[in-house]
Amino acid sequence: MASTNKNRQFISSETHLLDEIMQSRRDVRGNRFLPVALDQDDIDKIFAAALMAPSVGFSQPWEFVTITNAKTREQIAHSFFEENEKAKQLFQQGQFEAGKLEQYEQLKLEGIIETPLNIAVFYNPQKGPVLGQTSMPEMGRYSVVCAVQNMWLKARSLNIGMGWVSILDPQKVKSILNAPKDRELIAYLCVGKVDKFHDQPELEMLRWQERKKAEQVILKESF
Amino acid sequence: MASTNKNRQFISSETHLLDEIMQSRRDVRGNRFLPVALDQDDIDKIFAAALMAPSVGFSQPWEFVTITNAKTREQIAHSFFEENEKAKQLFQQGQFEAGKLEQYEQLKLEGIIETPLNIAVFYNPQKGPVLGQTSMPEMGRYSVVCAVQNMWLKARSLNIGMGWVSILDPQKVKSILNAPKDRELIAYLCVGKVDKFHDQPELEMLRWQERKKAEQVILKESF
Repeated sequence: MASTNKNRQFISSETHLLDEIMQSRRDVRGNRFLPVALDQDDIDKIFAAALMAPSVGFSQPWEFVTITNAKTREQIAHSFFEENEKAKQLFQQGQFEAGKLEQYEQLKLEGIIETPLNIAVFYNPQKGPVLGQTSMPEMGRYSVVCAVQNMWLKARSLNIGMGWVSILDPQKVKSILNAPKDRELIAYLCVGKVDKFHDQPELEMLRWQERKKAEQVILKESF
Repeated sequence: MASTNKNRQFISSETHLLDEIMQSRRDVRGNRFLPVALDQDDIDKIFAAALMAPSVGFSQPWEFVTITNAKTREQIAHSFFEENEKAKQLFQQGQFEAGKLEQYEQLKLEGIIETPLNIAVFYNPQKGPVLGQTSMPEMGRYSVVCAVQNMWLKARSLNIGMGWVSILDPQKVKSILNAPKDRELIAYLCVGKVDKFHDQPELEMLRWQERKKAEQVILKESF
């Protein structure tokens, strides 16, 4: 990669382009992915973006496992299936709006098998104190999430779709991937080319949940 | 903001520009910030980027408190001071490299007072089950972190610096800001114009910790 002047001043068309990438990034599910291979060069670029993420105390506490093996993905998909059955119980019970379970059951919530590449993202805790993590121990995990968000934006800018699957048993995923005991699953990503990117988040289009207004979530000076 | 075709295909110069923004994003500390005000328009753009972040089940579980009040910032800075004293104890003890405490003591680790704007970012948990969060309860917090990373990149593309301060007692910050009991502090951000952006992370320049190689953190198929 060409070296960059890090003190670079960006101009308005450049910051606007970043908005366009952010606005058109979607969480992509199995029904949009195409059964075509990814270029290794594009995969490398997505990982390069991950490694540009900030990390607390420059600890870089991330670890990525690329998964293409069909058997492994079947095992992961099985964990999704089990966890999704449990989730349906929760949406069936209690005080929720009528029809929520029916709507839930119609959603395609992962692309584990449909995508050419899965990436399991782990937190690898450092032995000993980490600068910046001494009062907020969860900071290391948050650094890993920053890397995931960089990957997501980079993938979108390469016109590649990514979906984050969280309806999984993290312990089962660790066991399937033979992860050391101290590692923690942060994200499970499905990556591939797509037929299209939706204009809005699918759950917004389907009115699963309403978009919050800026004034609801941005407060001045205190609560 | 002009509407965007979300199915937009980006070209190679555009994905390359995203790399430039990611590469030149820095965690900015008090010694680089300038005592100048921010334009409200730029602040609005940074929040617009936050609200473009992905969120589990479209739950948008974020809440942002903008802080300019000097008294409030003094109280927050006091929590930093207390927590930083505790951190020094940790770097003094035990099995760490000689000189680590001395190096730690020379670092400027926040810009609470120096910046014109602080932003406290909270997780506001939803009552009842959240789609995608039923097996991994930490997903809501991770959505908030994705919003912070979007803000950080957007700020950099506006040539505005941001620092994430995590050497704080989250309970004290909540109390200072009168946060409801169920809220959780995810990030405390210091935002302002800068004299320059460093070429590398400061902790890399100072050799606090070495940069990991891609092959150390990207594994194939399993551990």
